[in-house]
Amino acid sequence: MSISPFRLLCRSSETRARRGEVSTRHGTFQTPVFMPVGTQATVKGVTPAQLTELGAQIVLANTYHMFVRPGHELIRQFGGLHRFMGWDRPILTDSGGFQIFSLRDLAKITEQGATFQSHLDGSKLFLGPEEAVAVQEALGSDIMMALDTCIPYPASYAEAEAATALTSRWAKRCRTVQPDNGQLLFGIVQGGMYPDLRTRSAEEMMEIGFNGYAIGGVSVGEPTALMREITAHTAALLPEDYPRYLMGVGTPEDLVESVALGVDMFDCVMPTRNARNGMLFTTSGRVVIKNAQYSADQGPVDEDCDCYTCCNFSRAYLRHLYMAKEILSSTLNTIHNLHFFTNLMADMRRAIEEDSFARFRGTFYGKRA
Amino acid sequence: MSISPFRLLCRSSETRARRGEVSTRHGTFQTPVFMPVGTQATVKGVTPAQLTELGAQIVLANTYHMFVRPGHELIRQFGGLHRFMGWDRPILTDSGGFQIFSLRDLAKITEQGATFQSHLDGSKLFLGPEEAVAVQEALGSDIMMALDTCIPYPASYAEAEAATALTSRWAKRCRTVQPDNGQLLFGIVQGGMYPDLRTRSAEEMMEIGFNGYAIGGVSVGEPTALMREITAHTAALLPEDYPRYLMGVGTPEDLVESVALGVDMFDCVMPTRNARNGMLFTTSGRVVIKNAQYSADQGPVDEDCDCYTCCNFSRAYLRHLYMAKEILSSTLNTIHNLHFFTNLMADMRRAIEEDSFARFRGTFYGKRA
Repeated sequence: MSISPFRLLCRSSETRARRGEVSTRHGTFQTPVFMPVGTQATVKGVTPAQLTELGAQIVLANTYHMFVRPGHELIRQFGGLHRFMGWDRPILTDSGGFQIFSLRDLAKITEQGATFQSHLDGSKLFLGPEEAVAVQEALGSDIMMALDTCIPYPASYAEAEAATALTSRWAKRCRTVQPDNGQLLFGIVQGGMYPDLRTRSAEEMMEIGFNGYAIGGVSVGEPTALMREITAHTAALLPEDYPRYLMGVGTPEDLVESVALGVDMFDCVMPTRNARNGMLFTTSGRVVIKNAQYSADQGPVDEDCDCYTCCNFSRAYLRHLYMAKEILSSTLNTIHNLHFFTNLMADMRRAIEEDSFARFRGTFYGKRA
Repeated sequence: MSISPFRLLCRSSETRARRGEVSTRHGTFQTPVFMPVGTQATVKGVTPAQLTELGAQIVLANTYHMFVRPGHELIRQFGGLHRFMGWDRPILTDSGGFQIFSLRDLAKITEQGATFQSHLDGSKLFLGPEEAVAVQEALGSDIMMALDTCIPYPASYAEAEAATALTSRWAKRCRTVQPDNGQLLFGIVQGGMYPDLRTRSAEEMMEIGFNGYAIGGVSVGEPTALMREITAHTAALLPEDYPRYLMGVGTPEDLVESVALGVDMFDCVMPTRNARNGMLFTTSGRVVIKNAQYSADQGPVDEDCDCYTCCNFSRAYLRHLYMAKEILSSTLNTIHNLHFFTNLMADMRRAIEEDSFARFRGTFYGKRA
């Protein structure tokens, strides 16, 4: 048994959506929550002050990237990532499993762990379950993730079964070395697109006992309908009294649908990456800012938005910055997109509190129609 | 005669340094002042909010760049650059003369003006004195610059004389079409490295009569000693009761020495460009942040600095961001360097007020020894 950092505040009567909070060494965040991705100890394009101002409660950093550069021992000297990156709210670190999966042409996975070549200089590195926890301990994250093996889509049943079993054995080894210092450890449910393997994986994770449970291995190329199905199946298996985290998801629509399935936590590079590529999220759909139709548009990106970008700049100016390849383009677009995501979550939290989630969902889709 | 926007507040008794203020349609700024360069309607890497916070009083934008992209007619629709770029303090626009000089392989200069190819798409464009003023009128800058012809270094006497004479004829045409709407117009003294041509140019500019006078055509490759000499010679010729602007200068040392010669206004890409290249200014000299010596350095860039960057981040983190090619590297370095420049000017203003400029200068060089 691991203690739960989750406190349930209320439930939606119409869906499985729930409103809660998660307490960590660096304070409490309100759920459902979206976590901006700060791969290399920075959310690309924005300062911590801007992140705070746009409403980010917690950020994600990547264990793999920190391990490779600048190295977790350096960050340990700083007393952890918080002081290193100047962020005093909670941090979640992923385990490196997804990066090993992404770089699998450079990696060799054995029972012991993953041997891989650095994407920077080709040097040989090893990350096993114990090492993944040790690195995250050095990083001082509030929420650590157990090392997992991600399954490609499509994958044979045998392949998925073997990878899921290995994930369970690694999870147990991670749990064994979890430090007793308040750093939370979440287990990751795998199982590919096979519901029975998802069930088995969830049971094994709960048997080991973590501070929270993640749904991994979705958004790996499968159709949206299948992703929803697997998410629904898996979320329903997870314990009510622990936080549930859907990894690497997703679009605004994915967030709304997954909150309705009872998911509490999300992360995705989409708002930040798309911002840098000039794609902006709005309540009435997506805006591709380079389009000529915005060249003289004096209106804000989103009339309904009160972010720094929308309060001060026009679509025409944002288009100019994008066309001129100015750094400020990335910054202003990132502020807007992250604000859109954090604000969407805040709206959902409010809707759950008011038990009007179904109406919220209707309005959400209505505006985009 | 043109009215002067300059109010002299006090003088240094030991040098020719002076403390004043310049009033514009968008408020008053205190001199001596450093103007961050916002070439394409953005100071690269920072938001207007960050510029305000780091102490920028006025920014410079480039007429040539705005003319080419997004076009001054678009900016006119916004009522000017201030609203377009979200900056409500004063803006100075250069005339495009220096860009025509920089791109002179693409430009053809005649009595009428400069015909040149767009650096973006090769299309043929024309900018003469009347057009330069008309574009700046559309941009709505607080201080417009008369179109000039910059002289390369080295240049023959005949070449310098001809270009200087053309600059005077263009200046007169600019002055003739200056709008009567509160936009100030400064004339630019040329003359190359020939003191007698500088004298003649200054006299001709004063004869025409502008709201302020700039020293152009320095920092074009000449030795520092020669730049100082020409600056000293020219600054001494300019009227006491009008603002004096040394264009495109310079290093912290250049600023200190030129303030001592009675210059009021400066602009330079150095703090912003060097920031993006990882070179940081400090009271004890320059820091090249990528150097291995900073890899575990937990101290701030400058112990004496209270900018956002120095208050929150270490040299090791800034090195990490630079090595990882993160956008935040440019942003945090730019905030620091611009704060260093604006703070240096604030220190000089205080020293002049206290009539301790000579002591200030001694301390300034002492820290770097």
